[in-house]
Amino acid sequence: MILGPKLIEYHENYMRLALAAAQRAYDLGETPVGAVAVYRDMVLATSHNRREILPDPTAHAEILALQKAAQDLNNWRLTDVTLYVTLEPCIMCAGAILQARLGRLVFGAYDPKAGAVGSVTDIIRTPLFPNNTEVLGGILADRSSELLSNFFADKRRDGREVEGARLEGE
Amino acid sequence: MILGPKLIEYHENYMRLALAAAQRAYDLGETPVGAVAVYRDMVLATSHNRREILPDPTAHAEILALQKAAQDLNNWRLTDVTLYVTLEPCIMCAGAILQARLGRLVFGAYDPKAGAVGSVTDIIRTPLFPNNTEVLGGILADRSSELLSNFFADKRRDGREVEGARLEGE
Repeated sequence: MILGPKLIEYHENYMRLALAAAQRAYDLGETPVGAVAVYRDMVLATSHNRREILPDPTAHAEILALQKAAQDLNNWRLTDVTLYVTLEPCIMCAGAILQARLGRLVFGAYDPKAGAVGSVTDIIRTPLFPNNTEVLGGILADRSSELLSNFFADKRRDGREVEGARLEGE
Repeated sequence: MILGPKLIEYHENYMRLALAAAQRAYDLGETPVGAVAVYRDMVLATSHNRREILPDPTAHAEILALQKAAQDLNNWRLTDVTLYVTLEPCIMCAGAILQARLGRLVFGAYDPKAGAVGSVTDIIRTPLFPNNTEVLGGILADRSSELLSNFFADKRRDGREVEGARLEGE
């Protein structure tokens, strides 16, 4: 799909909100992924990954945003909703997008390890599960990737520091 | 996998709890699917589909049971948990099972239209997403199928009655 500059700018503006949510996850020590659910130019939900804090294996940014949007619209069918997420959804979240009959998915970085919308597999654009969800990937992908790389570099460094402290303590 | 009669009986006992939860969903007008999460012979969660009531596109029985189990164990990793569910999980729920690092999945009826653990696709036993979840399908499958068939027959009959009332009213 080729988008004009106006439309790219339109999507980038919402993606910036999702990136800000991802930054909040980062600050809390959660894998930095953020999401925003938009219904007719109205932001219904802004969420970030909360797996560790809750703890809840299903608390990915996308799931939390879909739940909030359905509550606000009092309808589990989200056919007029666009979901922005900073990272390509995993299998669970791609499945939730199908369950919600989501109108449109816009995501940032591709996830070569677990992405289920084009990278490892494609749950949305397979004839196995017919659906009408429009998909647009790669919006502000570099900023999303940078956040994730920094987060995992921090974790590795923290791991080495913990290991170093243990060795010194022995 | 060939199971001895003792082990089949063991799994059937928990599946009966899941079927009772599915019956509660039925009574509430929700698609009758029930789930039970068990940790070392202890039932942590009993849940049923609540998509319409909440409303929440992600409120399948499996998701609700995984969430409750993670809360009780204060850990999103459910490696020592067995999830019983009356129907083969969909893509979303199969993905949630991967996210939770679930120890074991035991399900009832196969779902030829949307099942993602052997019917339409297989998310758990694919080399694309390495995991250690043990899978056992077909436990008390007939009782689960019967509940679902009755539910959809009721819905179709209700639909015809509504249609009939409308024609009479015109």
